[in-house]
Amino acid sequence: MPTRIVLCAREMHAPAWLEALRAALPDADLWWRDAAKLDADPLAPQADIAIVWRPPPALFEEQRRLRAVFNLGAGVDALLAMPAFPRDALLVRLEDAGMADALAEYVLAAVLRVYRGFDRYAIRQRDARWQAEVLRPRSNFTVGVLGLGVIGTAIARALAAHGFAVRGFARTRHTIEGVDCRAGDAEFASFLDGLDALASVLPLTADNRGILNRANLARLADGAHVINVGRGAHLVEADLLALLDEGKLGGATLDVFETEPLPADHPFWRRPEILITPHISAVTELEPSVAQIAEKIARLERGEAITGVVDLRRGY
Amino acid sequence: MPTRIVLCAREMHAPAWLEALRAALPDADLWWRDAAKLDADPLAPQADIAIVWRPPPALFEEQRRLRAVFNLGAGVDALLAMPAFPRDALLVRLEDAGMADALAEYVLAAVLRVYRGFDRYAIRQRDARWQAEVLRPRSNFTVGVLGLGVIGTAIARALAAHGFAVRGFARTRHTIEGVDCRAGDAEFASFLDGLDALASVLPLTADNRGILNRANLARLADGAHVINVGRGAHLVEADLLALLDEGKLGGATLDVFETEPLPADHPFWRRPEILITPHISAVTELEPSVAQIAEKIARLERGEAITGVVDLRRGY
Repeated sequence: MPTRIVLCAREMHAPAWLEALRAALPDADLWWRDAAKLDADPLAPQADIAIVWRPPPALFEEQRRLRAVFNLGAGVDALLAMPAFPRDALLVRLEDAGMADALAEYVLAAVLRVYRGFDRYAIRQRDARWQAEVLRPRSNFTVGVLGLGVIGTAIARALAAHGFAVRGFARTRHTIEGVDCRAGDAEFASFLDGLDALASVLPLTADNRGILNRANLARLADGAHVINVGRGAHLVEADLLALLDEGKLGGATLDVFETEPLPADHPFWRRPEILITPHISAVTELEPSVAQIAEKIARLERGEAITGVVDLRRGY
Repeated sequence: MPTRIVLCAREMHAPAWLEALRAALPDADLWWRDAAKLDADPLAPQADIAIVWRPPPALFEEQRRLRAVFNLGAGVDALLAMPAFPRDALLVRLEDAGMADALAEYVLAAVLRVYRGFDRYAIRQRDARWQAEVLRPRSNFTVGVLGLGVIGTAIARALAAHGFAVRGFARTRHTIEGVDCRAGDAEFASFLDGLDALASVLPLTADNRGILNRANLARLADGAHVINVGRGAHLVEADLLALLDEGKLGGATLDVFETEPLPADHPFWRRPEILITPHISAVTELEPSVAQIAEKIARLERGEAITGVVDLRRGY
């Protein structure tokens, strides 16, 4: 009997993904459910595997026989918060598929914008003000990367290759050439101390919600810049605004927010020191994603182990 | 008799430069003239060599015995336009001294900003508009580099290393790995055709004044971005404004202008599609500059040939 697979996603060019998945998994029975329109249908065909991107909670009320769920992204916090999510199924996240490159590029672009003063020149431009800044050596500009999985490591490497001083932090000890890696609660304060820019790429867990708060952000250098490409719930938004108002922080580049889309009346929109991007830092590329998923499904069918399986207690 | 050297510059921390030059040229007789305050003094001591950065024309009315002039920058058009500039002296420009890296970084930062849509997201932010763009592959984003000296070559290499499609143009044929190099008038139109971004790093000569005009810029891709780090006189400013108004061009990142500082009533200041930086793209670093100048002066004293001598007819 063929493996039965349901693809349920939003903001996706479904025909292209279906065609690529069918070509990579020719023996599977594969169908599409539009995530934007789905209501749980008790008579719907039951799949063995779901491939999802921001599905509605109703998907898991409808699909009661799932053995595995593949998430077309790295962050799984929203899935784990859904009441009907099958806790006995394997939850598998994409491990790279272009995302690491895209995120490293986003963070490098943000750091270069700040290091070269483009953000501050844009603010002065509003007052027709011609005022040059002295540029310090890259080796005196320290960037911290919070989270050192596949993506955080790629970010840290890209920044170090460009010549910046780079510190990394994770719960467990990592070794990355050219990066000063700190680990564990005891070293967190020294990781933050005096950073000129901080890029957070953490997965969201119960432990790290609100980690970008006043107490921690106040440890950065005066005028420091905060980049968040992890999850909006890491950042205490009111604390960021207060630290900008006080002049402690210089600005922020934010791709993720507590509420997305960011509400039109949110104060962030009106702050020239904050650059808002609409959750576009990671890009999931079709070809590497499909190849990765197809290979993992084939391994599962052969009873082999796969990487990228989420530890449900840990949350990533 | 010691070589007599006058240092005449503005926007410089003179004590640090004097100290470094004296350490590198211990046998020379070296003194400082403040470029911002200089009036030609007929009784001033006469130097053999001048080291200058944006000196006033009066320097060359005062100094009548110069055998060589070292310019602390790459562009010499302003010096050549000074009536009293000694046409029989060697004019030597800095050949890198950190400038190539700094300019490559500036252009990479500008291209990344445009490629990842940061400039367009910043404009939408003014209307609290959350709207994601689809990101095309880097290999489908073509950047042209106009001018392939030491600096232009460094820019083209940095862009190609990042994965962009890169074309280069110079009067004479160059070969740069990973860069599609065009040469001569006959290939100029095909160099421009369909570029998504164009970075100009040309030296200013009589031939290329106004080269960034309507006819040439209209060849770029719709929505293309113009980066000028060469000289302001290359760009026909009214043509750029018209092409932005018509929606043909998407934006510009400009570090150099016809008149600097850019006058407060200039229309560029009020255009959110134009990012203005106050002539900060190149950074002349003290240590490599001093080392380069000292080595060249030593070679001249031994009667040896040096590189970086400007061809006065060509203008660079």
